[in-house]
Amino acid sequence: MNTKIITISREFGSGGRSIGKAIAKQLDIPYYDKELVKQVALETKFDEKYIEDAGEYSPGATSLSYWLPFTGSDGFMGGLSPASFLWVMQRKVILDIAEKGPCVIVGRCADFILKDRDDCFHVFVHADMDFKADRIVRLYGQTEKTPEERLSEKDKKRSINYKHFTGREWGKSQNYHLSLNSGKIGIDACVETVIRLAAEVK
Amino acid sequence: MNTKIITISREFGSGGRSIGKAIAKQLDIPYYDKELVKQVALETKFDEKYIEDAGEYSPGATSLSYWLPFTGSDGFMGGLSPASFLWVMQRKVILDIAEKGPCVIVGRCADFILKDRDDCFHVFVHADMDFKADRIVRLYGQTEKTPEERLSEKDKKRSINYKHFTGREWGKSQNYHLSLNSGKIGIDACVETVIRLAAEVK
Repeated sequence: MNTKIITISREFGSGGRSIGKAIAKQLDIPYYDKELVKQVALETKFDEKYIEDAGEYSPGATSLSYWLPFTGSDGFMGGLSPASFLWVMQRKVILDIAEKGPCVIVGRCADFILKDRDDCFHVFVHADMDFKADRIVRLYGQTEKTPEERLSEKDKKRSINYKHFTGREWGKSQNYHLSLNSGKIGIDACVETVIRLAAEVK
Repeated sequence: MNTKIITISREFGSGGRSIGKAIAKQLDIPYYDKELVKQVALETKFDEKYIEDAGEYSPGATSLSYWLPFTGSDGFMGGLSPASFLWVMQRKVILDIAEKGPCVIVGRCADFILKDRDDCFHVFVHADMDFKADRIVRLYGQTEKTPEERLSEKDKKRSINYKHFTGREWGKSQNYHLSLNSGKIGIDACVETVIRLAAEVK
């Protein structure tokens, strides 16, 4: 195919990760999400939980206790705050992964980090509140917060993080080649559409 | 098909109108764009040029001379400004058209006006600057302004108009079921994707 790398950005609960996994499986190419976290952890010595949280959510949203053990005598890494240091390392890992060959990367501003490569197809997946609320309760169970609160909280953090590091609006159509409402279109049809279009595009 | 109405919102120069026309032709259903303007003109007695401009662009962006002949003694239509009156009438025409059966409607905030109908499929078409600039010069020729200025001006007005009447962000993925970069994906593949997905969705 002409497209080597498919990036998937997604609203929490929209099924974007499942769509990404299914695409990678059908195309028999690597899928990066948690795997990317492990790679960044290896290179930065950061705690995986910190990377998982801070790599996608708003800077400063996570506990200091994750990174304190890794700071130098000045309290910073090469003059960077932990969040900025993580961004730099995560960016490096994503650029390295892209060099290795075809793959699917979910989240982590990969659409922005790889925006200058012509061989990428950038996808955004979203859905209506009812669809997402039902999905997160089925997948992750109930919590003290309502599903709507959990959804809004996660996506707000993703949006702030994206804006902070990229200067762009998260979820704005123009940032992606394709945006899909997975609730309306259906998970399987989303998978099929991404595979078909990614193979066709120049 | 389950979807009766396909609405297309689009950036100027992205080929959204051509995509809409091709979809309507292939599905053999009515296409509304200029036709809608004629219908609104019939119902409001407004000048067609005024409707064409003010129906999609920012309120107040067009000359007063279009509507002055139609104002009552109080200078307003039923207490509404001309732009608001036009919005109300345009909304009515779009709701009436939707009742008549399957069709394609391009622009005019139809995605918002018909957002509560389950039988609609809302599409946004956009493209990179180079693709749009090249396209408008080929289709509409050169003018004193650069293609980039013309594109930015038109889309800015569309965006302000959309925000003013709908309260929503124009081009935000979440407002549409499907958003496509026509430059990357190609006009024909966009047509094919919309037809296929609109037929499949619940």
